[in-house]
Amino acid sequence: MSSIALVIPDRDLSRLVAALQLHLPEVVIEQWPDIQQSEQVEFVVVWKQPAGSLQHFPALKAIQSYGAGVDSILRDPQLPSLPISRIVDPMLATAMVRYLDTVVRMYQLRLDQFARQQQLAQWRPKGPRKLITIAVLGLGELGQAVAAHFVAEGFTVTGWARTLKQLPGVQCFAGMDSFAAAVTDADLVMCLLPLTSATEALLNEHHLAMFKTGAILINVARGAIVDERALLIALDSGQLEAACLDVFSQEPLPAAHPFWSHHKVTVTPHISAVTNIDTAARQIAENYQRSQRGQPLLHPVDLSKEY
Amino acid sequence: MSSIALVIPDRDLSRLVAALQLHLPEVVIEQWPDIQQSEQVEFVVVWKQPAGSLQHFPALKAIQSYGAGVDSILRDPQLPSLPISRIVDPMLATAMVRYLDTVVRMYQLRLDQFARQQQLAQWRPKGPRKLITIAVLGLGELGQAVAAHFVAEGFTVTGWARTLKQLPGVQCFAGMDSFAAAVTDADLVMCLLPLTSATEALLNEHHLAMFKTGAILINVARGAIVDERALLIALDSGQLEAACLDVFSQEPLPAAHPFWSHHKVTVTPHISAVTNIDTAARQIAENYQRSQRGQPLLHPVDLSKEY
Repeated sequence: MSSIALVIPDRDLSRLVAALQLHLPEVVIEQWPDIQQSEQVEFVVVWKQPAGSLQHFPALKAIQSYGAGVDSILRDPQLPSLPISRIVDPMLATAMVRYLDTVVRMYQLRLDQFARQQQLAQWRPKGPRKLITIAVLGLGELGQAVAAHFVAEGFTVTGWARTLKQLPGVQCFAGMDSFAAAVTDADLVMCLLPLTSATEALLNEHHLAMFKTGAILINVARGAIVDERALLIALDSGQLEAACLDVFSQEPLPAAHPFWSHHKVTVTPHISAVTNIDTAARQIAENYQRSQRGQPLLHPVDLSKEY
Repeated sequence: MSSIALVIPDRDLSRLVAALQLHLPEVVIEQWPDIQQSEQVEFVVVWKQPAGSLQHFPALKAIQSYGAGVDSILRDPQLPSLPISRIVDPMLATAMVRYLDTVVRMYQLRLDQFARQQQLAQWRPKGPRKLITIAVLGLGELGQAVAAHFVAEGFTVTGWARTLKQLPGVQCFAGMDSFAAAVTDADLVMCLLPLTSATEALLNEHHLAMFKTGAILINVARGAIVDERALLIALDSGQLEAACLDVFSQEPLPAAHPFWSHHKVTVTPHISAVTNIDTAARQIAENYQRSQRGQPLLHPVDLSKEY
């Protein structure tokens, strides 16, 4: 009798369990750390699992990420060598595009500046910011949807990824040698990269210096892609005009972190795109059944690329 | 030899003068109060003119507002009885729609709440606000463009005006007796009314109480349409969830005004739609020529309606 374990600490999973049980009424679904019969667990759904926790399941056949990213899973040094899959949610792209579109309009209208001036009771009318060129870093499912949206909205869009992509209306660049070319004209730089050993702290002093002076950074990917100290220096020097950050190297963002009070930083609490429970449950159930039948998983992770 | 006087205090008019002079190279254009030969002024462009200032022009034939509204002109008790026209700028509607669309998205994403929580270093993720129904108060050129935009965006839209309008996709109401019906279901109420004796302080305690509990008010029309004290009380009681105000009974908003520091109020410094100088110059030049030829003016103001 095979069972599923959810290894997703510090979250209320009652809605996920209910949704999964709908698709898999016969299957036992347990929540870590309360696993009654760990030797029966053949499938795990994981998110930020404690290192080594998957070692407790000797019969494990497959690992399912509970999100689109897998960086929090791959960092486990005792991760079993098993097929890993991730959630690919079309609604995630819709939500992400909506978030970014809203933030771009907010910056165009200068609502960030007016909010700051409101705190100081300052009345300083000013026309919209001229934002013309957007660089999209990362051209996976989300990055492609975002690039296509802003092309349709009339922006000049450049894209940057590990390998060269061909996307309609987007000037694409690939590899570190082309990073400067990808960002040099961008009024806005949007980070949608996966967090890998190649992208960790990518946005450091060296690469932020390649941005156009006065550019705006929006990070909706992973906090650790940004060197947070270097970002603060770039904001203070005027190299960057502003930053909108939805992700942080530590979440929740610690109360003493300088981002909270920085007048050029907009903090949102990781809300740009949240996994839809129903979409996730459907894909998890499908992958569980595939693993039981010995079929390849949907949305497999390529460990050589780390995403 | 006829001339034009610009009676627009406290503004740098150099760009307007240059644009007008392009259309009317032969005409003398002077700026109040430095008028050399006031008896030659046959046409005035006015905005918040000092009371009685137009009495100095005995040969005056027509009065041109420098904006879409005329409330600041009509309040002059010594206003000469002459044809008055106003600027109708299609770009004004585009800018207004853009402003309102940005503010609606900002509220949907809860950027107002997250900004408040940022000040307190609070991390409280939350999904979007469900905003379904929008009431548009005032269905002139701007109100109609706004209503059509939000119908196209998929919102349920109601409209309210002095007289009953027929607008595709908009449930229209007219007159004071229908005010409650127009706003009762609205998650967002947008004020685009002209300021007249009928609309002054319209949004008072009595009418704000007709809003749906937890509604959001956006005022882009004139500050005096809102009873500011009643609005503060409605925000504090929770009758209103938030207000975004671009216009105020006194502008610039005085530094001691409670709106600046109210946590539910977003203040923008009258930037939702600013007269485009080139559009205005073209219409002013056309109306000047019409008044010289004795033809009716473009975009005349109906004094019985006050707009």
